[in-house]
Amino acid sequence: MSTFADRVGRVRREMEAQGVDVLLLSVGPDLPYLTGYEAMPLERLTMLVLPRQGEATLVVPRLEAPRVVEQPDVFTTQAWNETDDPIDIVAGLAKGAAVAAIGDHTWARFLVDLLTALPSTTFRRASTVVSPIRSRKDVAEIAALRAAGAAADRVARQLQGGEIPMVGRTEADVSADISRRLLAEGHQRVNFAIVGSGPNGASPHHSASARVLERGDLVVCDFGGRMNGYCSDITRTVALGGAPAEAIEAYAVLREAQRAAVAAAVVGTPCEEVDAVARRIITAGGFGDRFIHRTGHGIGMEEHEDPYIVSGNHLALAPGHAFSVEPGIYTPGQWGMRLEDIVVATSDGPESLNTVDHDLVVLDV
Amino acid sequence: MSTFADRVGRVRREMEAQGVDVLLLSVGPDLPYLTGYEAMPLERLTMLVLPRQGEATLVVPRLEAPRVVEQPDVFTTQAWNETDDPIDIVAGLAKGAAVAAIGDHTWARFLVDLLTALPSTTFRRASTVVSPIRSRKDVAEIAALRAAGAAADRVARQLQGGEIPMVGRTEADVSADISRRLLAEGHQRVNFAIVGSGPNGASPHHSASARVLERGDLVVCDFGGRMNGYCSDITRTVALGGAPAEAIEAYAVLREAQRAAVAAAVVGTPCEEVDAVARRIITAGGFGDRFIHRTGHGIGMEEHEDPYIVSGNHLALAPGHAFSVEPGIYTPGQWGMRLEDIVVATSDGPESLNTVDHDLVVLDV
Repeated sequence: MSTFADRVGRVRREMEAQGVDVLLLSVGPDLPYLTGYEAMPLERLTMLVLPRQGEATLVVPRLEAPRVVEQPDVFTTQAWNETDDPIDIVAGLAKGAAVAAIGDHTWARFLVDLLTALPSTTFRRASTVVSPIRSRKDVAEIAALRAAGAAADRVARQLQGGEIPMVGRTEADVSADISRRLLAEGHQRVNFAIVGSGPNGASPHHSASARVLERGDLVVCDFGGRMNGYCSDITRTVALGGAPAEAIEAYAVLREAQRAAVAAAVVGTPCEEVDAVARRIITAGGFGDRFIHRTGHGIGMEEHEDPYIVSGNHLALAPGHAFSVEPGIYTPGQWGMRLEDIVVATSDGPESLNTVDHDLVVLDV
Repeated sequence: MSTFADRVGRVRREMEAQGVDVLLLSVGPDLPYLTGYEAMPLERLTMLVLPRQGEATLVVPRLEAPRVVEQPDVFTTQAWNETDDPIDIVAGLAKGAAVAAIGDHTWARFLVDLLTALPSTTFRRASTVVSPIRSRKDVAEIAALRAAGAAADRVARQLQGGEIPMVGRTEADVSADISRRLLAEGHQRVNFAIVGSGPNGASPHHSASARVLERGDLVVCDFGGRMNGYCSDITRTVALGGAPAEAIEAYAVLREAQRAAVAAAVVGTPCEEVDAVARRIITAGGFGDRFIHRTGHGIGMEEHEDPYIVSGNHLALAPGHAFSVEPGIYTPGQWGMRLEDIVVATSDGPESLNTVDHDLVVLDV
């Protein structure tokens, strides 16, 4: 049985268990996970109609049909022409479904149309039936994550080794430099390259601005991309020439919180407990009110996916769960710091896919 | 009045005319068009709640709030914390709305949640109220499209001038080369760089493969990206050293069809008539069954947006409409060809934003 057929079989069992009659997948990773085919994010609808039983159909625009690699044991293809209405086709295939699960990233415009075309169908998120399967990576997926992580590590090592010029350049320049290095190390796509220097580091989702890096800055560098279908994500913070005493003290707390949270990520532990471990240490260190986000997110074909390492997520870690562990401490107007590895839960304990130096590296500038 | 406040005022008049009570915008270009703020495409919900009357609210994750540039005459910001439920907040703000228009690209997972939270609300596509405004570009937007088009033209000129090595390289290599040149010419992002050589050119949405380009190939190069918020999109077909007689004959038909369709794009003409003009010429030339897609799509902040140049679209062109005119002829297993310019409808007639050589350039290889 192909990998795809195996996955579809497991998803169908989940549909059975949850009472979902049909799965409708468009853009986003669930479709390539189950079929190998990635929908183009365009206004022409691509949608897999996967009933709980019976044949699955990939509804695809005629001019994209040549891109489809057939998987006869998983789906047949139905191409639609420029003046056809693909919603009619999907509604016809899904007719009679009481409960449909629709891909989380599907464009709302298509769901709006399906609500009219299938008035007696109730819609749920597809992730409720796909995530329990997709969040547990198999051996090949973990190998892909490991390779992407190693590539990101090589860029982080260049950063920590002083090979990436910093002082006197803008954040945007440094971000572009990191992006080029991710590509040079084997990524096909850069998803983001955050460079938050000095006070900008205190905004966790700051991307990269025209601010010029200066001696004395802490610089949060958080970057990742996609390599052979799987994502990397790493954060290291470096100090340009030196750092304030409070930051050095805070970093020691952060380092310990991150280490302990990774160590806590053993199979069976609830996701929220991993978050709590990091939070308790940072709170005990006196920086609790400056750790303003969850500890992590799942990673795989998407940068952010299940399982989320956040308060309220009671899900127990299982072998194959892959996720970030990335506590941070942010002092508004002054500096920020974050430390992130990707970790896989295994029956032998947590495996960190990022092994590059975890200390606050002070660059000689 | 700011540009944003002016646009919001016009959208509100459209909401009034169409009986839409509240507009809900998340990822996609409608939000930055009306507020200047672009939502991150992540699992933490960002949503503008814009009632037909009264104050608009941008609901945003706390850790992304520092990215928001306030527009006090357009919206106020409401940040939510990591353990809040943003759907509750949006539902509270939209309470009582009989008809909501939700951003076309909003992730379905959020609409699924809103269907439960707002059970008596009917949902429509936001584009029904925003596109009539956004599809008609103002002077600054046309200037941005013109600049992006000129940058794409410079890359096309390098292609036609033989500056981009072709024979002996893979499509993927040539695609990467074109992408780098788009960036070097001022684009911030490459959206796509299709290189369809030989038989691959017959698949209109072929991207770029490991096929090595050979002497005698026709090569369809269709590329574009985003520059200062607005998109470029151009296609030129080149011949490597020569071309079969039938292809040369077909190209003459294609060239004339594209020229005539551009000339037909005058204010007041229905979009479908521009398509029909190209189609009639290609059909008369004997290639009608090999022109397998619509003639074009609108372009602006998105690569593909209203108005679509397609059979069935009765919309009359108006000043400021910007769109592609890109007929093609595809012979399966042998070759493909496409010729594309971006055109703006103005009261002085159609303005083509791409002016680089429209002939089938035969490269000396």
